[in-house]
Amino acid sequence: MQINLNRLQQKLYKMSKIGATTEGGVTRLALSSEDKLARNLLKEWIARTGMAVRVDDIGNVYGRKEGANPKAKPIVIGSHLDSIINGGIFDGTLGIVSALEVIQTLSDNSIVTKRSIEIVNFTNEEGMRFDSPMLGSGVLSGDYHIKDVYAEVDATGKAFVDELKMIGYLGSSKNRLLEAEAFLELHIEQGPILDRKNVSIGVVESMLGFTWMEVKITGEVNNSGPTPMEMRKDSLCSAAKMILEIQKSAKKIGKRSITTVGKIEAEPGYINAIPGKVTFWVDVRAEDLERQIFGVKLILERIHQIAEEDGVEVQIRSIKSIDPVHFSGHIVHAIEQSAKTLGYPTKRIVSGAGHISTFMNRLCPTAMIFVPSVEGKSHCPDENTKWEDIEKGANVLLYTIEKLAQG
Amino acid sequence: MQINLNRLQQKLYKMSKIGATTEGGVTRLALSSEDKLARNLLKEWIARTGMAVRVDDIGNVYGRKEGANPKAKPIVIGSHLDSIINGGIFDGTLGIVSALEVIQTLSDNSIVTKRSIEIVNFTNEEGMRFDSPMLGSGVLSGDYHIKDVYAEVDATGKAFVDELKMIGYLGSSKNRLLEAEAFLELHIEQGPILDRKNVSIGVVESMLGFTWMEVKITGEVNNSGPTPMEMRKDSLCSAAKMILEIQKSAKKIGKRSITTVGKIEAEPGYINAIPGKVTFWVDVRAEDLERQIFGVKLILERIHQIAEEDGVEVQIRSIKSIDPVHFSGHIVHAIEQSAKTLGYPTKRIVSGAGHISTFMNRLCPTAMIFVPSVEGKSHCPDENTKWEDIEKGANVLLYTIEKLAQG
Repeated sequence: MQINLNRLQQKLYKMSKIGATTEGGVTRLALSSEDKLARNLLKEWIARTGMAVRVDDIGNVYGRKEGANPKAKPIVIGSHLDSIINGGIFDGTLGIVSALEVIQTLSDNSIVTKRSIEIVNFTNEEGMRFDSPMLGSGVLSGDYHIKDVYAEVDATGKAFVDELKMIGYLGSSKNRLLEAEAFLELHIEQGPILDRKNVSIGVVESMLGFTWMEVKITGEVNNSGPTPMEMRKDSLCSAAKMILEIQKSAKKIGKRSITTVGKIEAEPGYINAIPGKVTFWVDVRAEDLERQIFGVKLILERIHQIAEEDGVEVQIRSIKSIDPVHFSGHIVHAIEQSAKTLGYPTKRIVSGAGHISTFMNRLCPTAMIFVPSVEGKSHCPDENTKWEDIEKGANVLLYTIEKLAQG
Repeated sequence: MQINLNRLQQKLYKMSKIGATTEGGVTRLALSSEDKLARNLLKEWIARTGMAVRVDDIGNVYGRKEGANPKAKPIVIGSHLDSIINGGIFDGTLGIVSALEVIQTLSDNSIVTKRSIEIVNFTNEEGMRFDSPMLGSGVLSGDYHIKDVYAEVDATGKAFVDELKMIGYLGSSKNRLLEAEAFLELHIEQGPILDRKNVSIGVVESMLGFTWMEVKITGEVNNSGPTPMEMRKDSLCSAAKMILEIQKSAKKIGKRSITTVGKIEAEPGYINAIPGKVTFWVDVRAEDLERQIFGVKLILERIHQIAEEDGVEVQIRSIKSIDPVHFSGHIVHAIEQSAKTLGYPTKRIVSGAGHISTFMNRLCPTAMIFVPSVEGKSHCPDENTKWEDIEKGANVLLYTIEKLAQG
């Protein structure tokens, strides 16, 4: 039994036309008119495979292939059709079209599994239009509350609930997924590891936790020319020291930790003014909670130490924090066994990015399958994954789902 | 003989109301309606002291107090009435109202000097609305060409010549100052040196030269979470190293050199993306040409070295460069003698900022008098100079002008 790559490709290309950008990417912001068109197409595809369609109160769209024992907890496959602005065509969409392909292949082979299989398109995974990422799964897991979600507004002040209604995807809370035997997602890696190691299948065993912080440094704004070096409080020089210390701290935190300063603003921002005010944002990620807490503590200590040495003031604000996630050993093992059966080498991998599975892991045993991102690129039009890798990934998903659904 | 501080204060306060901001600063961009009102008020003041008014083809406004020998080269006092956005009330304006006060005091004392005395309000000193700073003096010195100046446009696409016409200050090229015996300007220091040393009179003997450069670093943009530390090309980390090296290089360049990175932009600028593209701007200033050339060379070497170590690409573009200026020893000495006569201690000082005198020094013997800026602040509503210092500065200007005009 093998998936039909050609059929999968056609779906992926068709979906990539909705919100297509001139650079070859897609813009399908959550609850936009493009998201509506994408959902409509998905509903059509679900119906065509003979599955029942339903929509819940967060706008998650489900398809259900009934099993021999409809009362048994289902096996769930999910991903997302929303994108960032000018994102890639594989991110999220690959998981959806692969899920459909798994259902279609099982039907083609007249396989009726013991457990029902559900596929889900989760609302607002990217968190680009509405601030909270992975919204659809976060409501199911209880991490977000529906009232708060409904009240969230986009940059233009439009409320989530109104936009959900507007595109026709405000369903019933009765349609929510409440329990599952297992959750799986096939996703592109979005990093360079599998591509560099030339391994097609990444078996995701855990996800880095992360802490986001804002650091504001206040020195003294002055004209550069008239202010001698020894009379300055240059916040950008202090920020530069901090940025290098933050970079170095990843090694001290250890294992697969990462530390990034991705955004910086210096004021007043003139070539001939000493930047007395600098704000930068820190992203600290670690594989286990202990390391994450240690990492944040270490970085805070170094920032305060440098501020004191330089005589500048510093204010630090925590923005968001999500604990590390450890996936189900049972599902991880099932994925590896499927790959072995198919003869594909695998590599255990830690996801650096957050995913729907972050929250789904709290609802049921969960794991993910990664396929390589060429040169590690994603969230851009250059995002690419080789078709041979996609075929292998979808086959591993098929075998794993079949095994779990028969269990 | 002493200037009348009260009269000077009243003029300064009256001028500060034109373009006054809610924060207590002024916004009088060159050739704006506020600049027009300021010029009209100046013309009124010039006429009231009995001086002849004229306007040249760059919009410089002159007042001339005829000397006993009208054919002798005049002594010129000048500054500017234009400001940056929300600048201070002293910058430039102090030089204009002090010049008027010098003329008025000489008249009050029925002093007719041998040489004529001219006062000048120079157009677009700040270079905030139209890009080229010190435009009015730069055309007189031949550093800018009138055709280029006329064609300069502001951020909204309005041409200099049209705006000059619009406010009614497009005069004749016949009215330009062509030669002078000496040029003097009284200006606030804009730096902290005099304030910290508690000296009222700064005798400016030279001005730092400066070179402005743009540095573009190209590493690799990637999502932070999925990209391990050892697989990154983080341009912000490379920029941080360069910024610290640039800061350190001031000591190596020596004397009163300064090095500043005042502006930085990191792309794509997300908290969870590796900033693969960073641009920052460098301001290098030195007291003599040799040091300035050495400083730029040193900084370029270090930037290229760090880029090579980090495996990032770097592109450097020179934006602007002005050579250091050494003022007339004769005028510097005349200022010191005047202060001595008045019993005021002085301090020789190097101007870190560029001024009208940068260009006037090429036309005739030039020097400047600085008065302290409280806490070194300027170009902001907090800009302040004590009235007792202003009184001393204006008296030194008076005595120096009288001596030079009698020579």
